[in-house]
Amino acid sequence: MSAFTIDETHDPALTSWVESANGHADFPIQNLPLGIFAPPGGSPRIGVAIGDQILDLGVVARLLPDAAARTIGGATLNPLMALPQADRVALRRALSRLLTGEAHRREVEDGLFVAADCALHLPAAIGDYTDFYAGIHHALNIGKQFRPDNPLLPNYKWVPIGYHGRASSIRASGMPVVRPNGQRKAPDADVPSYGPSRRLDYELELGVWVGPGNALGTPIPIAQAAEHIAGFCLLNDWSARDLQAWEYQPLGPFLAKNFQTTISPWVITAEALAPFRIAQPPRPEGDPAPLPYLLDAADQAKGALGLSLEVSLLTATMREAGAAPFALSKGSAANMYWTVAQLVSHHASNGCNLAPGDLLGTGTISTPDASGMGSLMELSRNGQQPLALPNGETRTFLEDGDEIILSARAEAAGAVSIGFGDCRARILPAPAV
Amino acid sequence: MSAFTIDETHDPALTSWVESANGHADFPIQNLPLGIFAPPGGSPRIGVAIGDQILDLGVVARLLPDAAARTIGGATLNPLMALPQADRVALRRALSRLLTGEAHRREVEDGLFVAADCALHLPAAIGDYTDFYAGIHHALNIGKQFRPDNPLLPNYKWVPIGYHGRASSIRASGMPVVRPNGQRKAPDADVPSYGPSRRLDYELELGVWVGPGNALGTPIPIAQAAEHIAGFCLLNDWSARDLQAWEYQPLGPFLAKNFQTTISPWVITAEALAPFRIAQPPRPEGDPAPLPYLLDAADQAKGALGLSLEVSLLTATMREAGAAPFALSKGSAANMYWTVAQLVSHHASNGCNLAPGDLLGTGTISTPDASGMGSLMELSRNGQQPLALPNGETRTFLEDGDEIILSARAEAAGAVSIGFGDCRARILPAPAV
Repeated sequence: MSAFTIDETHDPALTSWVESANGHADFPIQNLPLGIFAPPGGSPRIGVAIGDQILDLGVVARLLPDAAARTIGGATLNPLMALPQADRVALRRALSRLLTGEAHRREVEDGLFVAADCALHLPAAIGDYTDFYAGIHHALNIGKQFRPDNPLLPNYKWVPIGYHGRASSIRASGMPVVRPNGQRKAPDADVPSYGPSRRLDYELELGVWVGPGNALGTPIPIAQAAEHIAGFCLLNDWSARDLQAWEYQPLGPFLAKNFQTTISPWVITAEALAPFRIAQPPRPEGDPAPLPYLLDAADQAKGALGLSLEVSLLTATMREAGAAPFALSKGSAANMYWTVAQLVSHHASNGCNLAPGDLLGTGTISTPDASGMGSLMELSRNGQQPLALPNGETRTFLEDGDEIILSARAEAAGAVSIGFGDCRARILPAPAV
Repeated sequence: MSAFTIDETHDPALTSWVESANGHADFPIQNLPLGIFAPPGGSPRIGVAIGDQILDLGVVARLLPDAAARTIGGATLNPLMALPQADRVALRRALSRLLTGEAHRREVEDGLFVAADCALHLPAAIGDYTDFYAGIHHALNIGKQFRPDNPLLPNYKWVPIGYHGRASSIRASGMPVVRPNGQRKAPDADVPSYGPSRRLDYELELGVWVGPGNALGTPIPIAQAAEHIAGFCLLNDWSARDLQAWEYQPLGPFLAKNFQTTISPWVITAEALAPFRIAQPPRPEGDPAPLPYLLDAADQAKGALGLSLEVSLLTATMREAGAAPFALSKGSAANMYWTVAQLVSHHASNGCNLAPGDLLGTGTISTPDASGMGSLMELSRNGQQPLALPNGETRTFLEDGDEIILSARAEAAGAVSIGFGDCRARILPAPAV
């Protein structure tokens, strides 16, 4: 079995007796994403999204395979993410059978809750959070703003560039983001001052949930990396560009990023995405081949994701007028220079230990052209070209009351398409200084 | 009460009925550091070091103040670190009385174990680890190697520079360090290769344990920062200089640092260090004053630590010959440009939430001259000037079998001096590539 195996759970003819699942944009029976939810008046627990319902796995524990059943008593998915891939696949098959067949329908129905009535939590206790920089067009777009003749640094095509982020400030979709105060120094100012960020931005990323992981000192070979990927989410790496520009030399981003990171709460499992695996785009002629520790034929053949990503903006004015969110960008997740397996294997290549429930961000994913730029810094050319919104408003960076909504759809010929669910948050004003 | 209050627990006339504590270099009755230890055949639990013994706090729980007693059932200090400072002070006073007075001696003796027989663990589950760059002479020494005319970047005297590190790979003293493999590119090489780091280094730092912390979106005012500091340890920020040079642009250190970080396992409480507080050294004339959010008169008056720090090296050859470790450097912890309170307040100044058991590193602490340079990169001038060891060996960077030992002593007139205990680890060969 590989992470790319398609089985009966992906059958496009499959339907669920949960009627709302059939034709559901995000959560048809072929998706079965896992998460942590609290029903009205109840405590957080493990569930699977099916149409507009959530199934409490605790209620059906005795109908699940033993290995998975033993991991579902708590309020995080960490123990489940720690399972070998075979056990995660077995759970998926069992859930698919329970929600399609009539054999245990009465019992399963007892565990269903209306999703709209439930609160969604972070799916795991995140031990460590690492953010990469694998979106090459983003790196090029940003690099061009500062080094027009030499936008990519010499290491980019050799090293999957990454850095550690803050785990404590990661929040599930829906939690508002307080605009950070911080030091910023205008180019024409003599000295910095402390106050609200004036250049608050979003970044469109995929999040990657780490599965079993490795012991300290023991790398993860590239051929085994896929076994250590438990699933995916959307990730908004909120960024205060003015704080970042002033603080980031020589040790990288810090307060410009760590005030909050928003993720979509459902874990779209690696198994659910198997039909949407595509070949990693070939490297441009003249680019170096990955070093052997990052090179694997299977990963190159099936290592990219056929996902369409979209960012929308809903301003306070649009919200009051009852207008729909405005699409800022749309593009493919295949615009990454490194596969997710390469990110995992590189991360552990020095012996650094990854653990179940760790979160990796891919870095901002942008398209080569302006249609799918994954941040306002790119779309507004570092604030030089304001974006015109349909209602007459303009934006260079985010204003208080703005809401950013990330979404993702997986589509492939012969497969039922699935979605990731919402990743959204609204900006609140900075605290008084 | 402030973090700087000296009370009867610091009385230099105080002695313990645990005889080995009286005159003990590290753990006299005036220290009372907390940690997690496992007695022979037993499970990890909370203890306090006293002379060459460790007292199991669980055994004396009923003799301790209620707030503290409620936090000592587990195998981490996180719940204790979360207590308000007043409760931590009350625990210290109770422990001091139990180990000096005869009233409960029989009962307390039942909880004593010989430290040499016990295993020491990490004192807390570390949620997030942040490393700062507050040692200005280190920043100058390193900066001079790359920018002789302009060693400090323009932000250094305004921003307490920091970045996120890896929490999962932090280990207690004694755990060997596996030399990391990684990408390194020699200056005269056309392309990088993957293999063992050839420039493995240590960095001498203090670690700071976060106490209660703050809610997301709510800063910690500088005047309250000291209440959120639970204690201190020694911290060795192992660094692979060749990996670092190749990977760190533009997002900072990653695999060059995250393969392991070694700390001393005893939490030297902020309360124990009260007699050793000294005035923060004045800024050189012409330097800017800290921005108001980082400026506090009490912190400037008592914010620095009167600690003497030392690094020693024991090579395999020295070990086989039965030789003593060789002192590489000795210097004062006051060589920091920012106080620890300033690091805490800056970290939370954008609303980033700090939690009990989070760990901060100060950054490498070096002296202005060569006597107390806190890394081999400084001592060997980036590998250009090999160090001569007394037995005829030389070192530019660390070799397999080398052991680095960090130590710290707090000394002040009229106070019984205390130590931090060992922070040591030996280098093991890299895994075969």
